[in-house]
Amino acid sequence: MWSLPPTDSVLHLLAFVALTAEGMTAALAAGRRSMDYVGVCLLACVTALGGGTLRDLFLGHYPLVWVANPIYLALPGGAALLTILIARLVHRLHLAFIVLDAIGLVVFTMIGCNVGWQMDASLPIVIVSGMVTGCAGGVLRDVLCNDVPLLFRSELYASVSVVTGLFYATAFGLNLNAELWTILTFVLGLSFRLLAVRYSWEMPKFVFTGDEKR
Amino acid sequence: MWSLPPTDSVLHLLAFVALTAEGMTAALAAGRRSMDYVGVCLLACVTALGGGTLRDLFLGHYPLVWVANPIYLALPGGAALLTILIARLVHRLHLAFIVLDAIGLVVFTMIGCNVGWQMDASLPIVIVSGMVTGCAGGVLRDVLCNDVPLLFRSELYASVSVVTGLFYATAFGLNLNAELWTILTFVLGLSFRLLAVRYSWEMPKFVFTGDEKR
Amino acid sequence: MWSLPPTDSVLHLLAFVALTAEGMTAALAAGRRSMDYVGVCLLACVTALGGGTLRDLFLGHYPLVWVANPIYLALPGGAALLTILIARLVHRLHLAFIVLDAIGLVVFTMIGCNVGWQMDASLPIVIVSGMVTGCAGGVLRDVLCNDVPLLFRSELYASVSVVTGLFYATAFGLNLNAELWTILTFVLGLSFRLLAVRYSWEMPKFVFTGDEKR
Repeated sequence: MWSLPPTDSVLHLLAFVALTAEGMTAALAAGRRSMDYVGVCLLACVTALGGGTLRDLFLGHYPLVWVANPIYLALPGGAALLTILIARLVHRLHLAFIVLDAIGLVVFTMIGCNVGWQMDASLPIVIVSGMVTGCAGGVLRDVLCNDVPLLFRSELYASVSVVTGLFYATAFGLNLNAELWTILTFVLGLSFRLLAVRYSWEMPKFVFTGDEKR
Repeated sequence: MWSLPPTDSVLHLLAFVALTAEGMTAALAAGRRSMDYVGVCLLACVTALGGGTLRDLFLGHYPLVWVANPIYLALPGGAALLTILIARLVHRLHLAFIVLDAIGLVVFTMIGCNVGWQMDASLPIVIVSGMVTGCAGGVLRDVLCNDVPLLFRSELYASVSVVTGLFYATAFGLNLNAELWTILTFVLGLSFRLLAVRYSWEMPKFVFTGDEKR
Repeated sequence: MWSLPPTDSVLHLLAFVALTAEGMTAALAAGRRSMDYVGVCLLACVTALGGGTLRDLFLGHYPLVWVANPIYLALPGGAALLTILIARLVHRLHLAFIVLDAIGLVVFTMIGCNVGWQMDASLPIVIVSGMVTGCAGGVLRDVLCNDVPLLFRSELYASVSVVTGLFYATAFGLNLNAELWTILTFVLGLSFRLLAVRYSWEMPKFVFTGDEKR
């Protein structure tokens, strides 16, 4: 995420929303496992920044953005502490959380594509860069919470990321108006995700019950 | 893996077999946890490419090979989709899978040693480089499936990798005929692994039942 | 860790103690899950060197220290094998282990701060660098053992690391006598950790029982 060209101030602003949203969803996951306050903040930072960190490691994109701007650590950490305070309200805010989480997914994906593009990566790697940025933080959160990652099990999470990335990346090739395309991609991705949640769209599952020996 | 010297075309070809084999074994593991199709493909890519990725991160060997050649992502992903289609046949192909998996282990180990050697690493790091390339993908697969990694629990998996690496690395020091040595190492490693599976060779286990407090 | 300025020979010596201690605690964790001898050694290396490795990846601090000095792999691996031999004595050595583990935490934290400082990182990143070096190895150990990381759940582990790092980093800003400050920090951090264990100090926990849907 981040390292945006100056014109993308809208995307930059949305990145702050996304970091906050990811921090809050991670805090709720931490609360379900009765982690202590420090653990809640750490899990929030790993969830919010883990995707971008992995992408930067894969692309050799140094310095990592949170190393260059430590304020990015404070944001999800602070959001996690806030979540502890307002946890009782949270179940009434269920819808708000779903929307925030969807914003996080779409915005991180777009930022990841941006970074890949700036690193002169090929189109498939631009898409992968977006997907890693958008989805890997949640995988790390689930692994640290000792769950099989939600990403692998259900919901159109990775799929939304791929579609968003493909649509967004097309703009790079077509030399279209960047800001218009950014807004269009954001609306498309967000709608796709919210419709998927609303109507419980799911990918078919692969169920295999052979013997456990490899 | 990969980044092979042009002469090692045999190793290069075997790498494709290994990527496919790892993708298929990962798909079966995903199917046992009822992951959806996207999750199956993602797990296959992580398993097949995770070892080489970790090795490249450890050695600072940029660009990562799947970033330079995204086709390496398509191979295990496609193999995973194929596995979904033919899953009903798979239990009849048990032996084929064991052999393919063993090929993956041995080939990835040799490729890892090659990369370490090309990076001017010392002998122990060449061996570790081979072991990480050969074994770490399976560890990531087991962590994402929420299992204690098989590597740590049983079978001569890491041991086969170390022996293969040691034997292979000797050639670097002795300046022997590279191609002959490649074939010899491959046959030795594969035989060792298959014998270990056939006769259920195992390392002794360390069982400690002290109190859980650290 | 490591890459110390030559004057810090005390810290260097303590690093060997810390690597050994982390290897031994990891071996006990491995024994509780009945891992085989190879798995015990691998888990010891990951636990002892994982924190420093992650820090080096985050900061782009190449070559990794265990790549440059493979002897760092032999130390926790050897300590793990030794632990298998003396496991029956270990429950009598409970206190010694707690002290060794605390030394590991404090020393790794200080070394991590040192490395961050040498990389010209900002103060928050120096602290994070210390915390990652001190704590991340234990997180990796718990993930590989299929546990929710202890770090997130209880005890003042991360907190000790942060306080130690803050105190230590103050010296960088104040230009104080480095060796005196090193010893002071070590005593402070160790005392804090041991008092926390002795009196079971804990952070408050965040318990959230909302629905599981994100």
